[in-house]
Amino acid sequence: MKIKRYNKNDYSSYTLGATVSIELLKTRPECVRRVFIHSKLDSPEIIQKLETLCSTHNIFIEYNDKVFRVLSQKENCFVIALFEKYDMALSDQNRHVVLVEPSNTGNLGTIMRSMLGFEVRDLAIISPGVDCFDPKAIRASMGAVFNLNIRYYDSFEDYQTSFSTRPLFPFILDSNAKNLKHIDFPFNSALIFGNEARGLPQYFTKIGTPVKIYHGQSIDSLNLPIALSIALYECTMLG
Amino acid sequence: MKIKRYNKNDYSSYTLGATVSIELLKTRPECVRRVFIHSKLDSPEIIQKLETLCSTHNIFIEYNDKVFRVLSQKENCFVIALFEKYDMALSDQNRHVVLVEPSNTGNLGTIMRSMLGFEVRDLAIISPGVDCFDPKAIRASMGAVFNLNIRYYDSFEDYQTSFSTRPLFPFILDSNAKNLKHIDFPFNSALIFGNEARGLPQYFTKIGTPVKIYHGQSIDSLNLPIALSIALYECTMLG
Repeated sequence: MKIKRYNKNDYSSYTLGATVSIELLKTRPECVRRVFIHSKLDSPEIIQKLETLCSTHNIFIEYNDKVFRVLSQKENCFVIALFEKYDMALSDQNRHVVLVEPSNTGNLGTIMRSMLGFEVRDLAIISPGVDCFDPKAIRASMGAVFNLNIRYYDSFEDYQTSFSTRPLFPFILDSNAKNLKHIDFPFNSALIFGNEARGLPQYFTKIGTPVKIYHGQSIDSLNLPIALSIALYECTMLG
Repeated sequence: MKIKRYNKNDYSSYTLGATVSIELLKTRPECVRRVFIHSKLDSPEIIQKLETLCSTHNIFIEYNDKVFRVLSQKENCFVIALFEKYDMALSDQNRHVVLVEPSNTGNLGTIMRSMLGFEVRDLAIISPGVDCFDPKAIRASMGAVFNLNIRYYDSFEDYQTSFSTRPLFPFILDSNAKNLKHIDFPFNSALIFGNEARGLPQYFTKIGTPVKIYHGQSIDSLNLPIALSIALYECTMLG
Protein backbone atom coordinates (compact mmCIF):
# COMPACT_ATOMS: atom_id res chain seq x y z
CA MET A 1 0.00 0.00 0.00
CA LYS A 2 1.52 3.28 -1.12
CA ILE A 3 1.16 6.07 1.44
CA LYS A 4 1.08 9.66 0.26
CA ARG A 5 -0.26 13.04 1.35
CA TYR A 6 -3.92 13.72 0.62
CA ASN A 7 -4.95 15.24 -2.67
CA LYS A 8 -8.60 16.09 -3.26
CA ASN A 9 -8.71 13.97 -6.43
CA ASP A 10 -7.79 10.82 -4.48
CA TYR A 11 -10.45 8.17 -3.93
CA SER A 12 -9.36 7.76 -0.34
CA SER A 13 -8.50 10.03 2.58
CA TYR A 14 -7.49 9.60 6.21
CA THR A 15 -8.20 10.77 9.74
CA LEU A 16 -5.47 12.30 11.92
CA GLY A 17 -5.82 11.53 15.61
CA ALA A 18 -7.54 9.05 17.92
CA THR A 19 -10.85 10.87 18.44
CA VAL A 20 -11.71 11.36 14.78
CA SER A 21 -10.46 7.87 13.88
CA ILE A 22 -12.73 6.31 16.50
CA GLU A 23 -15.65 8.42 15.25
CA LEU A 24 -15.00 7.15 11.72
CA LEU A 25 -14.81 3.53 12.91
CA LYS A 26 -18.10 3.91 14.76
CA THR A 27 -20.06 5.61 11.99
CA ARG A 28 -18.59 4.40 8.68
CA PRO A 29 -16.63 1.20 9.47
CA GLU A 30 -17.38 -0.25 6.00
CA CYS A 31 -15.24 2.48 4.43
CA VAL A 32 -12.11 1.98 6.57
CA ARG A 33 -9.25 0.20 4.84
CA ARG A 34 -6.59 0.24 7.54
CA VAL A 35 -5.75 1.74 10.93
CA PHE A 36 -2.21 2.86 11.80
CA ILE A 37 -1.03 3.17 15.39
CA HIS A 38 2.15 4.99 16.41
CA SER A 39 4.48 3.35 18.92
CA LYS A 40 4.13 6.42 21.17
CA LEU A 41 0.39 5.85 21.73
CA ASP A 42 0.38 5.00 25.42
CA SER A 43 -3.32 4.91 26.31
CA PRO A 44 -4.38 1.27 26.89
CA GLU A 45 -7.99 2.46 26.83
CA ILE A 46 -7.73 3.91 23.32
CA ILE A 47 -5.78 0.90 22.04
CA GLN A 48 -8.46 -1.39 23.48
CA LYS A 49 -11.23 0.63 21.83
CA LEU A 50 -9.46 0.59 18.45
CA GLU A 51 -8.76 -3.13 18.66
CA THR A 52 -12.37 -3.94 19.52
CA LEU A 53 -13.78 -1.80 16.70
CA CYS A 54 -11.29 -3.12 14.15
CA SER A 55 -11.79 -6.72 15.11
CA THR A 56 -15.60 -6.36 14.89
CA HIS A 57 -15.32 -5.01 11.36
CA ASN A 58 -12.32 -7.05 10.16
CA ILE A 59 -10.06 -4.03 9.78
CA PHE A 60 -6.31 -4.50 9.78
CA ILE A 61 -4.27 -2.57 12.40
CA GLU A 62 -0.67 -1.75 11.53
CA TYR A 63 1.93 -0.41 13.97
CA ASN A 64 3.97 1.84 11.71
CA ASP A 65 5.63 5.12 12.76
CA LYS A 66 6.83 6.01 9.26
CA VAL A 67 3.26 6.63 8.02
CA PHE A 68 2.92 9.42 10.60
CA ARG A 69 6.01 11.22 9.34
CA VAL A 70 4.48 11.25 5.85
CA LEU A 71 0.87 12.12 6.64
CA SER A 72 0.88 14.15 9.86
CA GLN A 73 2.46 17.49 10.67
CA LYS A 74 1.27 17.53 14.27
CA GLU A 75 3.34 15.99 16.99
CA ASN A 76 0.43 14.68 19.01
CA CYS A 77 -1.11 12.47 16.31
CA PHE A 78 -0.77 8.76 17.15
CA VAL A 79 -3.67 7.18 15.25
CA ILE A 80 -4.48 7.39 11.53
CA ALA A 81 -7.32 5.60 9.73
CA LEU A 82 -7.31 5.29 5.93
CA PHE A 83 -10.77 5.22 4.38
CA GLU A 84 -12.44 5.24 0.99
CA LYS A 85 -14.43 8.36 0.25
CA TYR A 86 -18.15 7.74 -0.15
CA ASP A 87 -21.16 9.39 -1.79
CA MET A 88 -23.97 10.85 0.25
CA ALA A 89 -27.51 11.87 -0.63
CA LEU A 90 -29.29 14.72 1.10
CA SER A 91 -32.53 14.11 2.95
CA ASP A 92 -35.73 15.17 1.21
CA GLN A 93 -37.51 16.11 4.43
CA ASN A 94 -34.95 17.68 6.72
CA ARG A 95 -33.49 21.14 7.00
CA HIS A 96 -30.46 21.87 4.79
CA VAL A 97 -27.45 24.12 5.08
CA VAL A 98 -26.21 25.38 1.69
CA LEU A 99 -22.68 26.83 1.47
CA VAL A 100 -21.95 28.77 -1.72
CA GLU A 101 -18.26 28.48 -2.61
CA PRO A 102 -16.77 28.17 0.89
CA SER A 103 -13.01 28.71 0.76
CA ASN A 104 -11.62 27.89 4.21
CA THR A 105 -11.05 24.27 5.21
CA GLY A 106 -10.92 24.93 8.96
CA ASN A 107 -14.15 26.92 8.79
CA LEU A 108 -15.87 24.03 6.99
CA GLY A 109 -14.80 21.73 9.83
CA THR A 110 -16.13 24.11 12.48
CA ILE A 111 -19.40 24.46 10.55
CA MET A 112 -19.83 20.67 10.37
CA ARG A 113 -19.28 20.39 14.13
CA SER A 114 -21.93 23.07 14.80
CA MET A 115 -24.38 21.43 12.39
CA LEU A 116 -24.09 18.14 14.23
CA GLY A 117 -24.44 19.99 17.54
CA PHE A 118 -27.71 21.55 16.43
CA GLU A 119 -28.85 18.38 14.69
CA VAL A 120 -28.97 19.71 11.17
CA ARG A 121 -27.34 16.90 9.22
CA ASP A 122 -27.68 17.82 5.55
CA LEU A 123 -25.10 20.04 3.86
CA ALA A 124 -25.06 21.13 0.21
CA ILE A 125 -21.85 22.74 -1.05
CA ILE A 126 -21.94 24.77 -4.28
CA SER A 127 -18.65 24.37 -6.20
CA PRO A 128 -15.97 25.55 -6.17
CA GLY A 129 -15.78 24.81 -2.45
CA VAL A 130 -13.27 23.31 -0.07
CA ASP A 131 -13.21 19.55 0.38
CA CYS A 132 -15.09 17.99 3.31
CA PHE A 133 -12.78 14.93 3.17
CA ASP A 134 -9.61 16.99 3.53
CA PRO A 135 -7.88 15.66 6.68
CA LYS A 136 -7.80 19.24 8.03
CA ALA A 137 -11.57 19.60 7.60
CA ILE A 138 -12.13 16.21 9.23
CA ARG A 139 -9.96 17.19 12.17
CA ALA A 140 -11.58 20.63 12.60
CA SER A 141 -14.99 18.92 12.52
CA MET A 142 -13.82 16.60 15.33
CA GLY A 143 -15.30 13.75 13.29
CA ALA A 144 -18.72 15.39 12.79
CA VAL A 145 -18.24 15.02 9.01
CA PHE A 146 -18.90 11.27 9.30
CA ASN A 147 -22.33 11.92 10.80
CA LEU A 148 -23.52 14.30 8.08
CA ASN A 149 -24.91 13.97 4.57
CA ILE A 150 -22.83 16.20 2.30
CA ARG A 151 -23.24 16.71 -1.43
CA TYR A 152 -21.48 18.98 -3.91
CA TYR A 153 -23.40 20.76 -6.70
CA ASP A 154 -21.96 22.46 -9.76
CA SER A 155 -24.22 25.48 -9.32
CA PHE A 156 -26.96 26.80 -7.08
CA GLU A 157 -29.42 26.14 -9.92
CA ASP A 158 -28.46 22.45 -9.81
CA TYR A 159 -29.24 22.37 -6.11
CA GLN A 160 -32.57 24.14 -6.68
CA THR A 161 -33.53 21.68 -9.41
CA SER A 162 -33.07 18.81 -6.98
CA PHE A 163 -35.09 20.51 -4.21
CA SER A 164 -37.47 22.77 -6.07
CA THR A 165 -40.21 23.19 -3.44
CA ARG A 166 -37.94 24.01 -0.53
CA PRO A 167 -38.30 27.39 1.28
CA LEU A 168 -35.00 29.24 0.77
CA PHE A 169 -33.39 31.59 3.33
CA PRO A 170 -30.31 33.33 1.96
CA PHE A 171 -28.26 35.10 4.66
CA ILE A 172 -27.23 38.42 3.19
CA LEU A 173 -26.46 41.88 4.55
CA ASP A 174 -29.14 43.69 2.60
CA SER A 175 -31.35 46.51 3.87
CA ASN A 176 -34.47 44.54 2.90
CA ALA A 177 -33.40 41.32 4.61
CA LYS A 178 -35.49 40.27 7.60
CA ASN A 179 -34.14 40.08 11.13
CA LEU A 180 -33.20 36.50 12.08
CA LYS A 181 -34.95 36.99 15.43
CA HIS A 182 -38.33 37.39 13.70
CA ILE A 183 -38.31 34.37 11.43
CA ASP A 184 -39.97 31.01 11.86
CA PHE A 185 -38.10 28.50 9.79
CA PRO A 186 -40.18 25.66 8.30
CA PHE A 187 -38.65 22.31 9.07
CA ASN A 188 -37.58 21.71 5.47
CA SER A 189 -36.02 25.13 4.92
CA ALA A 190 -32.60 25.69 3.35
CA LEU A 191 -30.25 28.14 5.11
CA ILE A 192 -27.92 29.57 2.46
CA PHE A 193 -24.54 31.22 3.22
CA GLY A 194 -21.96 32.80 0.92
CA ASN A 195 -18.19 32.74 0.69
CA GLU A 196 -16.10 34.02 3.66
CA ALA A 197 -14.79 37.10 1.88
CA ARG A 198 -17.51 37.88 -0.67
CA GLY A 199 -20.75 36.75 0.98
CA LEU A 200 -23.62 35.76 -1.32
CA PRO A 201 -23.95 37.32 -4.79
CA GLN A 202 -26.46 40.18 -4.91
CA TYR A 203 -29.08 38.18 -6.88
CA PHE A 204 -29.81 36.17 -3.72
CA THR A 205 -31.73 39.22 -2.45
CA LYS A 206 -34.43 38.15 -4.97
CA ILE A 207 -34.51 34.51 -3.84
CA GLY A 208 -36.79 33.18 -1.09
CA THR A 209 -36.66 35.14 2.19
CA PRO A 210 -33.39 37.04 2.67
CA VAL A 211 -32.29 37.10 6.33
CA LYS A 212 -29.70 39.05 8.28
CA ILE A 213 -28.19 38.83 11.72
CA TYR A 214 -28.11 42.29 13.23
CA HIS A 215 -24.75 43.45 14.53
CA GLY A 216 -23.17 46.82 15.23
CA GLN A 217 -21.64 49.07 12.56
CA SER A 218 -18.13 48.55 13.90
CA ILE A 219 -17.55 45.31 12.00
CA ASP A 220 -18.28 44.52 8.34
CA SER A 221 -19.63 41.06 9.00
CA LEU A 222 -19.52 38.17 11.44
CA ASN A 223 -17.15 35.29 10.81
CA LEU A 224 -18.91 32.63 8.64
CA PRO A 225 -18.99 29.69 11.10
CA ILE A 226 -20.27 32.09 13.77
CA ALA A 227 -23.06 33.56 11.64
CA LEU A 228 -24.09 30.07 10.58
CA SER A 229 -24.03 28.70 14.13
CA ILE A 230 -26.14 31.59 15.41
CA ALA A 231 -28.67 30.83 12.66
CA LEU A 232 -28.72 27.13 13.58
CA TYR A 233 -29.11 28.00 17.26
CA GLU A 234 -32.00 30.33 16.47
CA CYS A 235 -33.89 27.95 14.20
CA THR A 236 -33.40 24.89 16.38
CA MET A 237 -35.61 24.39 19.39
CA LEU A 238 -33.38 22.30 21.62
CA GLY A 239 -33.71 22.16 25.37
CA MET B 1 15.36 50.53 15.22
CA LYS B 2 15.90 46.80 15.73
CA ILE B 3 13.18 44.66 14.14
CA LYS B 4 12.44 41.22 15.57
CA ARG B 5 9.63 38.74 15.79
CA TYR B 6 7.02 39.37 18.50
CA ASN B 7 7.50 37.98 21.96
CA LYS B 8 4.78 38.46 24.54
CA ASN B 9 7.19 40.11 26.97
CA ASP B 10 7.96 42.90 24.50
CA TYR B 11 6.63 46.39 25.19
CA SER B 12 5.64 46.77 21.57
CA SER B 13 3.85 44.69 18.96
CA TYR B 14 2.77 45.10 15.32
CA THR B 15 -0.12 44.69 12.94
CA LEU B 16 0.18 42.53 9.83
CA GLY B 17 -1.82 43.79 6.86
CA ALA B 18 -3.48 46.96 5.60
CA THR B 19 -6.92 46.56 7.18
CA VAL B 20 -5.73 46.03 10.75
CA SER B 21 -3.03 48.67 10.40
CA ILE B 22 -5.59 51.25 9.30
CA GLU B 23 -7.89 50.22 12.16
CA LEU B 24 -4.99 50.76 14.60
CA LEU B 25 -4.18 54.17 13.08
CA LYS B 26 -7.82 55.23 13.39
CA THR B 27 -8.40 54.07 16.96
CA ARG B 28 -5.02 54.28 18.74
CA PRO B 29 -2.82 56.62 16.66
CA GLU B 30 -0.95 57.83 19.77
CA CYS B 31 0.53 54.33 20.23
CA VAL B 32 1.89 53.90 16.69
CA ARG B 33 5.64 54.30 16.36
CA ARG B 34 6.14 53.61 12.67
CA VAL B 35 4.37 52.26 9.57
CA PHE B 36 6.14 50.04 7.04
CA ILE B 37 4.94 49.72 3.46
CA HIS B 38 6.12 46.99 1.07
CA SER B 39 7.09 47.95 -2.48
CA LYS B 40 4.49 45.49 -3.79
CA LEU B 41 1.57 47.44 -2.28
CA ASP B 42 -0.17 48.63 -5.43
CA SER B 43 -3.39 50.18 -4.14
CA PRO B 44 -3.20 53.98 -4.46
CA GLU B 45 -6.32 54.21 -2.32
CA ILE B 46 -4.71 52.38 0.61
CA ILE B 47 -1.44 54.30 0.26
CA GLN B 48 -3.40 57.58 0.26
CA LYS B 49 -5.33 56.53 3.39
CA LEU B 50 -2.13 55.54 5.21
CA GLU B 51 -0.35 58.74 4.22
CA THR B 52 -3.23 60.92 5.39
CA LEU B 53 -3.53 59.12 8.74
CA CYS B 54 0.21 59.16 9.35
CA SER B 55 0.62 62.77 8.40
CA THR B 56 -2.25 63.81 10.70
CA HIS B 57 -0.60 62.06 13.64
CA ASN B 58 3.05 62.70 12.76
CA ILE B 59 3.86 59.04 12.21
CA PHE B 60 6.86 58.12 10.10
CA ILE B 61 6.26 55.87 7.04
CA GLU B 62 9.12 53.68 5.89
CA TYR B 63 9.26 51.77 2.58
CA ASN B 64 11.19 48.68 3.60
CA ASP B 65 10.69 45.17 2.22
CA LYS B 66 13.16 43.50 4.57
CA VAL B 67 10.95 44.10 7.62
CA PHE B 68 8.25 41.96 5.98
CA ARG B 69 10.60 39.01 5.55
CA VAL B 70 11.37 39.14 9.28
CA LEU B 71 7.90 39.78 10.70
CA SER B 72 5.40 38.26 8.27
CA GLN B 73 4.94 34.68 7.13
CA LYS B 74 2.05 35.49 4.81
CA GLU B 75 2.70 36.46 1.21
CA ASN B 76 -0.14 38.97 0.98
CA CYS B 77 0.99 41.27 3.81
CA PHE B 78 2.14 44.66 2.50
CA VAL B 79 1.59 46.97 5.48
CA ILE B 80 2.94 46.66 9.03
CA ALA B 81 2.44 49.13 11.87
CA LEU B 82 4.66 49.01 14.97
CA PHE B 83 2.92 50.16 18.14
CA GLU B 84 3.50 50.39 21.86
CA LYS B 85 1.28 48.15 23.94
CA TYR B 86 -1.08 50.03 26.23
CA ASP B 87 -3.04 49.43 29.42
CA MET B 88 -6.80 49.35 29.47
CA ALA B 89 -9.35 49.60 32.25
CA LEU B 90 -12.68 47.82 32.12
CA SER B 91 -15.90 49.78 32.28
CA ASP B 92 -17.75 49.78 35.60
CA GLN B 93 -21.20 49.92 34.01
CA ASN B 94 -21.12 47.81 30.88
CA ARG B 95 -21.43 44.10 30.27
CA HIS B 96 -18.21 42.06 30.52
CA VAL B 97 -16.93 38.92 28.90
CA VAL B 98 -14.59 36.91 31.16
CA LEU B 99 -12.35 34.26 29.58
CA VAL B 100 -10.76 31.84 32.04
CA GLU B 101 -7.38 30.63 30.73
CA PRO B 102 -8.07 30.79 26.98
CA SER B 103 -5.37 28.89 25.07
CA ASN B 104 -5.91 29.53 21.37
CA THR B 105 -4.72 32.79 19.81
CA GLY B 106 -6.90 32.55 16.70
CA ASN B 107 -9.97 31.87 18.86
CA LEU B 108 -9.22 34.97 20.95
CA GLY B 109 -9.14 37.02 17.75
CA THR B 110 -12.47 35.62 16.55
CA ILE B 111 -13.98 36.28 19.98
CA MET B 112 -12.83 39.92 19.95
CA ARG B 113 -14.38 40.39 16.49
CA SER B 114 -17.71 38.96 17.69
CA MET B 115 -17.63 41.11 20.84
CA LEU B 116 -17.22 44.25 18.78
CA GLY B 117 -19.97 43.04 16.43
CA PHE B 118 -22.39 42.66 19.33
CA GLU B 119 -21.15 45.81 21.02
CA VAL B 120 -19.79 44.23 24.18
CA ARG B 121 -16.48 46.02 24.56
CA ASP B 122 -15.04 44.86 27.89
CA LEU B 123 -12.99 41.68 28.14
CA ALA B 124 -11.36 40.24 31.26
CA ILE B 125 -8.84 37.44 30.74
CA ILE B 126 -7.88 35.23 33.68
CA SER B 127 -4.22 34.18 33.44
CA PRO B 128 -2.64 32.10 32.09
CA GLY B 129 -4.25 33.12 28.83
CA VAL B 130 -3.13 33.88 25.29
CA ASP B 131 -1.96 37.38 24.45
CA CYS B 132 -4.42 39.84 22.87
CA PHE B 133 -1.48 41.80 21.37
CA ASP B 134 -0.05 38.77 19.59
CA PRO B 135 0.02 39.73 15.87
CA LYS B 136 -1.96 36.54 15.11
CA ALA B 137 -4.70 37.55 17.57
CA ILE B 138 -4.78 41.07 16.14
CA ARG B 139 -5.13 39.71 12.63
CA ALA B 140 -7.82 37.17 13.55
CA SER B 141 -9.72 39.99 15.29
CA MET B 142 -9.53 42.03 12.05
CA GLY B 143 -8.50 44.95 14.23
CA ALA B 144 -11.38 44.64 16.70
CA VAL B 145 -8.82 44.38 19.52
CA PHE B 146 -8.10 48.12 19.22
CA ASN B 147 -11.75 48.96 19.92
CA LEU B 148 -12.02 46.89 23.11
CA ASN B 149 -11.01 47.30 26.74
CA ILE B 150 -9.03 44.23 27.74
CA ARG B 151 -7.49 43.47 31.10
CA TYR B 152 -5.62 40.45 32.48
CA TYR B 153 -6.19 39.20 36.04
CA ASP B 154 -4.05 36.74 37.98
CA SER B 155 -7.10 34.83 39.21
CA PHE B 156 -10.87 34.88 39.00
CA GLU B 157 -10.92 36.06 42.61
CA ASP B 158 -8.90 39.13 41.58
CA TYR B 159 -11.49 39.92 38.94
CA GLN B 160 -14.32 39.44 41.44
CA THR B 161 -12.64 41.74 43.94
CA SER B 162 -12.60 44.51 41.34
CA PHE B 163 -16.25 44.01 40.35
CA SER B 164 -17.85 42.57 43.45
CA THR B 165 -21.50 43.47 42.83
CA ARG B 166 -21.69 42.24 39.27
CA PRO B 167 -24.19 39.45 38.36
CA LEU B 168 -22.11 36.46 37.19
CA PHE B 169 -23.17 34.00 34.47
CA PRO B 170 -20.71 31.11 34.10
CA PHE B 171 -21.32 29.03 30.94
CA ILE B 172 -20.95 25.40 31.98
CA LEU B 173 -22.37 22.07 30.83
CA ASP B 174 -23.99 21.17 34.14
CA SER B 175 -27.36 19.53 34.61
CA ASN B 176 -28.47 22.37 36.91
CA ALA B 177 -27.42 25.13 34.54
CA LYS B 178 -30.24 27.23 33.07
CA ASN B 179 -31.09 27.30 29.39
CA LEU B 180 -29.60 30.38 27.68
CA LYS B 181 -32.94 30.93 25.91
CA HIS B 182 -34.67 31.59 29.25
CA ILE B 183 -32.30 34.12 30.77
CA ASP B 184 -32.58 37.89 30.94
CA PHE B 185 -29.11 39.30 31.35
CA PRO B 186 -28.82 42.52 33.39
CA PHE B 187 -26.88 45.14 31.52
CA ASN B 188 -23.89 44.91 33.85
CA SER B 189 -23.64 41.11 33.84
CA ALA B 190 -20.42 39.17 33.33
CA LEU B 191 -20.51 36.24 30.87
CA ILE B 192 -17.83 33.75 31.92
CA PHE B 193 -16.30 31.09 29.65
CA GLY B 194 -13.68 28.42 30.32
CA ASN B 195 -10.70 27.07 28.44
CA GLU B 196 -11.24 25.46 24.98
CA ALA B 197 -10.39 21.93 26.11
CA ARG B 198 -11.32 21.91 29.79
CA GLY B 199 -14.25 24.35 30.06
CA LEU B 200 -14.78 26.02 33.43
CA PRO B 201 -13.70 24.32 36.67
CA GLN B 202 -16.57 22.58 38.45
CA TYR B 203 -16.71 25.16 41.29
CA PHE B 204 -18.27 27.64 38.86
CA THR B 205 -21.53 25.67 39.21
CA LYS B 206 -21.78 27.37 42.65
CA ILE B 207 -21.14 30.88 41.34
CA GLY B 208 -23.88 33.26 40.17
CA THR B 209 -26.30 31.78 37.61
CA PRO B 210 -24.79 28.88 35.63
CA VAL B 211 -25.98 28.84 32.01
CA LYS B 212 -25.83 26.30 29.21
CA ILE B 213 -26.49 26.35 25.49
CA TYR B 214 -28.52 23.30 24.59
CA HIS B 215 -27.15 21.15 21.80
CA GLY B 216 -27.56 17.55 20.73
CA GLN B 217 -25.78 14.59 22.35
CA SER B 218 -23.68 13.93 19.25
CA ILE B 219 -21.02 16.49 20.15
CA ASP B 220 -19.28 17.07 23.49
CA SER B 221 -19.39 20.84 23.29
CA LEU B 222 -19.58 23.75 20.90
CA ASN B 223 -16.38 25.46 19.79
CA LEU B 224 -15.56 28.32 22.24
CA PRO B 225 -15.89 31.36 19.91
CA ILE B 226 -19.18 29.91 18.66
CA ALA B 227 -20.66 29.33 22.13
CA LEU B 228 -19.59 32.81 23.18
CA SER B 229 -20.98 34.46 20.05
CA ILE B 230 -24.33 32.70 20.47
CA ALA B 231 -24.45 34.02 24.04
CA LEU B 232 -23.64 37.56 22.88
CA TYR B 233 -26.27 37.31 20.16
CA GLU B 234 -28.87 36.13 22.66
CA CYS B 235 -28.15 38.75 25.31
CA THR B 236 -27.86 41.66 22.89
CA MET B 237 -30.98 43.28 21.54
CA LEU B 238 -29.77 44.63 18.23
CA GLY B 239 -32.04 45.31 15.28
